[in-house]
Amino acid sequence: MKLVVLGAAGRMGRTLVKIITETGGASLHAALEREGSPAIGSDAGLLAGIGDIGLSVEADIDAALDGADGIVDFTAPAVSVSLAAKAAEKRLVHVIGTTGFEADADAAIGKAARNGAVVVKSGNMSLGVNLLAVLVEQAARALGPDAFDIEVLEMHHRHKVDAPSGTALLLGAAAAKGRGISLPEHSVRVRDGITGAREKGSIGFATLRGGSVVGEHSVILAGEGERIELSHAATDRAIFARGAVKAALWAKDQPAGLYSMRDVLGLAA
Amino acid sequence: MKLVVLGAAGRMGRTLVKIITETGGASLHAALEREGSPAIGSDAGLLAGIGDIGLSVEADIDAALDGADGIVDFTAPAVSVSLAAKAAEKRLVHVIGTTGFEADADAAIGKAARNGAVVVKSGNMSLGVNLLAVLVEQAARALGPDAFDIEVLEMHHRHKVDAPSGTALLLGAAAAKGRGISLPEHSVRVRDGITGAREKGSIGFATLRGGSVVGEHSVILAGEGERIELSHAATDRAIFARGAVKAALWAKDQPAGLYSMRDVLGLAA
Amino acid sequence: MKLVVLGAAGRMGRTLVKIITETGGASLHAALEREGSPAIGSDAGLLAGIGDIGLSVEADIDAALDGADGIVDFTAPAVSVSLAAKAAEKRLVHVIGTTGFEADADAAIGKAARNGAVVVKSGNMSLGVNLLAVLVEQAARALGPDAFDIEVLEMHHRHKVDAPSGTALLLGAAAAKGRGISLPEHSVRVRDGITGAREKGSIGFATLRGGSVVGEHSVILAGEGERIELSHAATDRAIFARGAVKAALWAKDQPAGLYSMRDVLGLAA
Amino acid sequence: MKLVVLGAAGRMGRTLVKIITETGGASLHAALEREGSPAIGSDAGLLAGIGDIGLSVEADIDAALDGADGIVDFTAPAVSVSLAAKAAEKRLVHVIGTTGFEADADAAIGKAARNGAVVVKSGNMSLGVNLLAVLVEQAARALGPDAFDIEVLEMHHRHKVDAPSGTALLLGAAAAKGRGISLPEHSVRVRDGITGAREKGSIGFATLRGGSVVGEHSVILAGEGERIELSHAATDRAIFARGAVKAALWAKDQPAGLYSMRDVLGLAA
Repeated sequence: MKLVVLGAAGRMGRTLVKIITETGGASLHAALEREGSPAIGSDAGLLAGIGDIGLSVEADIDAALDGADGIVDFTAPAVSVSLAAKAAEKRLVHVIGTTGFEADADAAIGKAARNGAVVVKSGNMSLGVNLLAVLVEQAARALGPDAFDIEVLEMHHRHKVDAPSGTALLLGAAAAKGRGISLPEHSVRVRDGITGAREKGSIGFATLRGGSVVGEHSVILAGEGERIELSHAATDRAIFARGAVKAALWAKDQPAGLYSMRDVLGLAA
Repeated sequence: MKLVVLGAAGRMGRTLVKIITETGGASLHAALEREGSPAIGSDAGLLAGIGDIGLSVEADIDAALDGADGIVDFTAPAVSVSLAAKAAEKRLVHVIGTTGFEADADAAIGKAARNGAVVVKSGNMSLGVNLLAVLVEQAARALGPDAFDIEVLEMHHRHKVDAPSGTALLLGAAAAKGRGISLPEHSVRVRDGITGAREKGSIGFATLRGGSVVGEHSVILAGEGERIELSHAATDRAIFARGAVKAALWAKDQPAGLYSMRDVLGLAA
Repeated sequence: MKLVVLGAAGRMGRTLVKIITETGGASLHAALEREGSPAIGSDAGLLAGIGDIGLSVEADIDAALDGADGIVDFTAPAVSVSLAAKAAEKRLVHVIGTTGFEADADAAIGKAARNGAVVVKSGNMSLGVNLLAVLVEQAARALGPDAFDIEVLEMHHRHKVDAPSGTALLLGAAAAKGRGISLPEHSVRVRDGITGAREKGSIGFATLRGGSVVGEHSVILAGEGERIELSHAATDRAIFARGAVKAALWAKDQPAGLYSMRDVLGLAA
Repeated sequence: MKLVVLGAAGRMGRTLVKIITETGGASLHAALEREGSPAIGSDAGLLAGIGDIGLSVEADIDAALDGADGIVDFTAPAVSVSLAAKAAEKRLVHVIGTTGFEADADAAIGKAARNGAVVVKSGNMSLGVNLLAVLVEQAARALGPDAFDIEVLEMHHRHKVDAPSGTALLLGAAAAKGRGISLPEHSVRVRDGITGAREKGSIGFATLRGGSVVGEHSVILAGEGERIELSHAATDRAIFARGAVKAALWAKDQPAGLYSMRDVLGLAA
């Protein structure tokens, strides 16, 4: 499968170049950067730290898409929307790891998916996190609030500036969905001092920060005399690139439409 | 739901008496011991450490089943087979936590389920462990052997005489089922000295023993740069009684047949 | 060693009766309750669930101390102060698990220790937690704030009404002592929303609540590319009784004075 | 402090170049490779992926040591022995992360340390692991075999060919030392099938393999109703380089002699 990488000189782009080159069934068709980038003309493999691969970074998207099977795109919402339209026109796979879409941008992506693009879009491209969310939803449904309390714990490196992490909230939302409740109405994000006993049906969050931890998340379902813990630990940001490439390979055989990582994992309800 | 407890003076029977008394929607209809037990005639609640409940332990099964809705039974295979026949005749719920059935006993239970008994039977009545097995099977299916290695870790108290635990093997079997492979052909139960690199597709086991640990199990799916861990910790043997009572309440509204704890949890495939 | 238990009909007192009876080198000399308690006259073993031991609960402290070697006392500050004076007079061991002392009560205990009592006093009688505090202090000293971030995580059952736990604060204080800093000035007890990056040298707390967890504590020291985690899990409240009896046996051979559980463990600096 | 790196084009050497350049108080004095290496003449910084630092890899050790304060050496026993003699002659710090020394090589290193070299030598240069070993020894001493069972758990990536890891054995040896027993006589390295109950005083090992795990070790002390767990997780091999540079900076102010990482951490008994 011939893939085009956007933002090929950035941190995620370079990782994508490396992962695509390593992955059986995938090959790098073109590596793009925005017009004017100093990386234009450099070898994409050299930038990715894997040696010369004989493929220069270029800026012309339309030329790059010619003969391609798919696009892997961790850029910005406006770029992704524009790419999705091109993907629809050329019946391409478009894997979107970009985050921060407004409603109208989401609508434009959806339209592209109806018009011929095979779009896979997710706020977290890690296979593991997406699988975990599915398992959490099921566990929360099976182990009801009368008997089991749900807590979400996360740890990230010392530089992270917000809490809880977006992925912790994603997992909390999966738990809330399993319970058929609203997360914002049931989440407890702070405990300090005299808190009173835990409120039944609430979903608690706890945050740890320190060192160079890439990202660890645990969802705990604690009952009388037993406890389930469902955890994910990331130790390398390459997992997001790896998930995106897996999504592209999966999407190659799908009809046009809008898919999530749950579809890729074969776990969609 | 009026429940009859077998072996009411034993450790599990006393726990069942306590849990049934505490559980909304359930009530203790009769508490049985085998003919000749010194507990006959004693109050079942006193034996269970919850005070006098005005219900004496008795030995006559047929009298006890009169007017009952269900039986909770952690006894021995021969007893359970005989009870299942009675349950079929009287259209009762029969929750079987007994273990060690041979094929012919299993067949007799199946026959009773076809003849009118609503049987729930499982080798481990804990809600958590049964849920975990379902999640493990899905995770093993979604995260294939090329990218993810599966390991099963368990810890039990210092008195346990075998390894790995039956529940560790149950979880390993769930993982193997998810992968579509045979556990015995792919399990690695010992690592010591020069082992060579890990064989792709194998399922490893590791065993810890110490202290008073009731039972802890983790299934790890380890890939490049990320790891999923699905764990269960039991701290009180009452969870097996609690699971059995939950199974009985669930079974009350089911047609006759043979069910597992997966059915009770609403997670059967 | 002949031990006197105070509050013998209470939850901790009954556990003490059981543990003393089970512990080699220790025997129950007397079991006390306050004047007017309905337990007076009952057999202490029956109350403790270990069968008749031929020793009735009584109310007369002075008679009880006659011929005794030591007192184990989880009562209230005023009672403990009064007992310490008697222990000084009779040159007895006095193990104090009571909490909530004001400065003047502490002073009175100290005076008794100078006047002949062999006092062991601690806010947490668990061997494990006291050992953990010693290890945390050393780790915090060895792994300085430029390279390692300290976080304290705790989990307790759903009924606990305050956060973080007293033991979490005790562990945080041990870390602060190792670093030579003040805990109140460096602790971060809440993280929610835009927090900014972690402040160097701070000690973070995170709290989980759920199920029936007796008490779990972890101190994490997270650096670049490595992490140390020092943890304690309690699954049975009997550990506090067991620690108190171990303290009494240890104190038997010590000169009068005021000791902590660190002394008992042979780990005092 | 001016440091010389041996094997500067190898994986550990390049990491050392990077870490020394980043560490305040340390500077790279020379980067060496064996005669004939293709890296001779290349810039050491470029090789390390940190850009040109104006210092070429060279082969002449004596020239390199001229004006240096210390050597950081992860090479081979014969090379380390020869370097130690030179360090003794020139009164240099010599940090040795090399492993696999025979008794005579160890003796030669000891002789160099008596003759003027300030040697820091350890089989594992990670600060965290060395600290953990100290803590494990203390915990094993404080929590005796009648009450606490010791287990060592480790996990490494799928490519590791031996079990248990050298570091797991190092931690087991620390536990055995704390208990005053011989590790080989008390270790249990395999559990499978009918094992019988755990033997008091034994030290158990369990091994997990999978994914890309750099190295995780836990020492568990499990008693009745409580458990201590002391763990280390490495996520980046740079920690070994970082520990070596910290050792060099510490050694700068020490008299000649043979030191371990415990001395560097200020935790030697």
